[in-house]
Amino acid sequence: MIMLDCGQMLPGDDMPGVDSVIPDMAFIRAHERSLKAIWITHAHEDHIGALPYVLPMLRKDIPIYVSEFARELLKEKLREYRLEPNFVTYEGRRRFRIGTHFEIEPIAVTHSMVDSFSAAIRTPAGVAIHSGDYKMDPSPPDGVAFDHYAFARYSEEDDDGVLVLLNDSTNVDRRGSCPSEAEVVPKLSQLVADAKGTVILSCFASSVHRVQTVMRIAAANNRVVFPAGLNMERIIRVARELGILDVVCDYRDDLRGVEAVPRSRRMILTTGSQGEPLSALSRIALGSHRHVKVTPGDTVIMSARMIPGNERAIYNIINNLSKAGAIIHDERSTPGIHVSGHGYRDDVKHMINLTNPQFLIPVHGEHRQLISQRNLAIEVGMEPEEVLIIENGDVVQISKAGTKILGKVPHGRVLVDGKGIGDVGEVVLRDRRHLAEDGMVLVTVAIDHETGELVSGPDIISRGFVYEDESRAMLDAAKQIVINAMEEESVSAREDISVMQATIKKALRKFFKQETERFPVILPVVLEV
Amino acid sequence: MIMLDCGQMLPGDDMPGVDSVIPDMAFIRAHERSLKAIWITHAHEDHIGALPYVLPMLRKDIPIYVSEFARELLKEKLREYRLEPNFVTYEGRRRFRIGTHFEIEPIAVTHSMVDSFSAAIRTPAGVAIHSGDYKMDPSPPDGVAFDHYAFARYSEEDDDGVLVLLNDSTNVDRRGSCPSEAEVVPKLSQLVADAKGTVILSCFASSVHRVQTVMRIAAANNRVVFPAGLNMERIIRVARELGILDVVCDYRDDLRGVEAVPRSRRMILTTGSQGEPLSALSRIALGSHRHVKVTPGDTVIMSARMIPGNERAIYNIINNLSKAGAIIHDERSTPGIHVSGHGYRDDVKHMINLTNPQFLIPVHGEHRQLISQRNLAIEVGMEPEEVLIIENGDVVQISKAGTKILGKVPHGRVLVDGKGIGDVGEVVLRDRRHLAEDGMVLVTVAIDHETGELVSGPDIISRGFVYEDESRAMLDAAKQIVINAMEEESVSAREDISVMQATIKKALRKFFKQETERFPVILPVVLEV
Repeated sequence: MIMLDCGQMLPGDDMPGVDSVIPDMAFIRAHERSLKAIWITHAHEDHIGALPYVLPMLRKDIPIYVSEFARELLKEKLREYRLEPNFVTYEGRRRFRIGTHFEIEPIAVTHSMVDSFSAAIRTPAGVAIHSGDYKMDPSPPDGVAFDHYAFARYSEEDDDGVLVLLNDSTNVDRRGSCPSEAEVVPKLSQLVADAKGTVILSCFASSVHRVQTVMRIAAANNRVVFPAGLNMERIIRVARELGILDVVCDYRDDLRGVEAVPRSRRMILTTGSQGEPLSALSRIALGSHRHVKVTPGDTVIMSARMIPGNERAIYNIINNLSKAGAIIHDERSTPGIHVSGHGYRDDVKHMINLTNPQFLIPVHGEHRQLISQRNLAIEVGMEPEEVLIIENGDVVQISKAGTKILGKVPHGRVLVDGKGIGDVGEVVLRDRRHLAEDGMVLVTVAIDHETGELVSGPDIISRGFVYEDESRAMLDAAKQIVINAMEEESVSAREDISVMQATIKKALRKFFKQETERFPVILPVVLEV
Repeated sequence: MIMLDCGQMLPGDDMPGVDSVIPDMAFIRAHERSLKAIWITHAHEDHIGALPYVLPMLRKDIPIYVSEFARELLKEKLREYRLEPNFVTYEGRRRFRIGTHFEIEPIAVTHSMVDSFSAAIRTPAGVAIHSGDYKMDPSPPDGVAFDHYAFARYSEEDDDGVLVLLNDSTNVDRRGSCPSEAEVVPKLSQLVADAKGTVILSCFASSVHRVQTVMRIAAANNRVVFPAGLNMERIIRVARELGILDVVCDYRDDLRGVEAVPRSRRMILTTGSQGEPLSALSRIALGSHRHVKVTPGDTVIMSARMIPGNERAIYNIINNLSKAGAIIHDERSTPGIHVSGHGYRDDVKHMINLTNPQFLIPVHGEHRQLISQRNLAIEVGMEPEEVLIIENGDVVQISKAGTKILGKVPHGRVLVDGKGIGDVGEVVLRDRRHLAEDGMVLVTVAIDHETGELVSGPDIISRGFVYEDESRAMLDAAKQIVINAMEEESVSAREDISVMQATIKKALRKFFKQETERFPVILPVVLEV
């Protein structure tokens, strides 16, 4: 067995308090002896982010195959978790024998992440190619081209060609080809050339391509580049040390020196393009950044995609920057300042043509996108039955003779919250959502264990329900409701705590519904003394 | 005083449990005697939605000026709240004297809502025009044209022209002109003509224009239209009764008859384009709709904008429909199936040219959009000082001699939750968010009021914190932590309940942080017996 990538998903609004969503490892742990390697295609979080949680579950010596840049980022990341795994560094076109049955060749692709690769996996049954994430960029800033030949070699020179292609589906719905990273140069250059004050440009820290592009534009416009945010500074340092980033401009990694540079020559490179509340850009927008203040006439360029779900946070930042007098450009207001890292439908078709697989499995997309890729494959000549739409956990058997879904293995999402992995499940989330909707009301009473008489309380505490000071009268009335409900019960019922709890809960639920149309979590505590 | 529109905002994810966000009425209530009318430009929720909450705060006889369609929708809506206000129905070009100082003329505009109007308000100081929401649609489905002449009359024939224009800023960042509603006809027609199975089309129920367009396409393709969802059925009925909607197709308002029509002739018109979980479309996608089932080859057309923040819910529906075998078209995958209701930047410029105001106040947009409209105004010849960027609550004095911000009146957002208006504020929301993040832990102990000895407990109940069954050992350890913490206190401290509560809280917070890296709300209940 090989594990190909090991990513995390960021939790949605329906998962309050959850830090990360990672894959269920039950099947792999049960068959750990068969696991010969973890193969990482590139260093984006949705491909590496689960490793800090997953590695401690596995034996320490499992080799992790990575490109150079991915290795360096992973090293720093895993060090925070005190993990020092067994890395094997690969480069394009170099083949690795893994276990008895596999040979893997990394094939260089272009993507928004530098040092990204597809994986061609030779098995006794035939060759499987996993595309990883890719676009077909004819002019990437680092000059490392998409390796068309290495793909074509498998389809043209290999006796049996490619048995199966697993192909990225992210942008199957976008027409044409994904523009080159070079396509952002004209617009960004113009904006920087026109800027009179400080230029603040935000992008993903991991986007070394974009950083390279921006540094070239800074140099051409005689601007001094400062990084804002630890992550930006760190990635620039790593990429520079590996020779992946060519720092062609005046670059100073200490923001304390920013005041010494005139505003018309400053360029701040920052993260926070998704509205992250703790990012440097967010602090700049709120006026609380220690070194960077926005003054009227400054230019802010959000050189990134607005990821759906983040719009509100992003527009909050934009509005604050706007109030501070900045001129703001984002991908919606100013086309041409960002390009995607994933191929569009023509690129997806090119990949199918290039590898000419006997079977295709669309991956890395939602169901509707997998279906869309099947339609593209049919347009370029594949038969519908040659394209497999599969779901998480499916076990697929593939041979020249055909394909078969053999069954399902345990799979699913595991939630990470603080130190807990998997201890937050649907029940806990449902409680959290319920608490968030209407808050909670805690009622405490103490009753005599012999007579069932009320000896203390009821006391009522609420959180997230109503503003207690203003709703004092209603909460006092609620106490009376509790007393009445208890008194209506028989003496024998009063001796049973669970009956009393249910009685209190029922009476209060009805009362609060009628008074407020709200349904708080009601927690009755009945103490027998 | 006139109140112009009275809308609600839908709460964001940062306001759990909140049903609606309405304007603070403190200032208007304090000056209610001066309030002569509420003037409604059109029937969208962000212009009428606060009325059910606001009207009970005001005197009953305040006239509400509305167009015919808005009146009918409002009547039904307010009936649910047992409100029967004093409606005055207006139509375009008919002037109304209001109070001593105002005369208002409604001017017909085109918009995604039928029966939409701008308001030209003549005052002793000059004419103010409030644009309302508009686009400049040369071919609206109902044939009611944008009334260019009525606007131009104020700028050309009025002695002093227009003093101030308050102008919609929604789409100031979109280039060119907003396409006509007629522009959706070719693509929708093609999709319906190509469809082999049932066609399910979702749009906003209030979008009578879109319903009209779809009914024409249904007629041309010999399809029978059924409404799914009460709201859709209701609005079609109201619009039809008013003669605004021409039901040109075979329309049957009882879905129970759908099985009698062959799939190739069915067309279901439904709401749910924003992924609303209780909508007909959502139930159809989940396979739980009583009358409509998706079978492979059916076509689903999402003929609406995806409102930012709703993407996840919308894509959930799309994925479920996709798994059921439907072919799905949304505004991102299939351009040409939706157009906006708000003018683009060229339309905004046209409005400024048409009314040629002495002053301009950009409204209906975020700060960055107000700034963008100012830039457009400067492009068409206004001076920067003639464009006022104002904030909520600002009191602006405008006369031919100039403009002045006189001050600020109380303003802000008031949250509605169930029956409560304004009783959920920042404190309650903070508690809700905290509860949602990490849940809560309730600890109960009873102590002897004389000795301070523990006589019962500690008992621990948690909600939304950890899965209790699997974390039994940790929760038991937490009990011991509580006991230890209590025992370390002096006897005198043990007699003070608030000290004991603080001690328990502190000890548990530290313990849970160390064990879980989580920070639940901790509620210690200490009973003296």
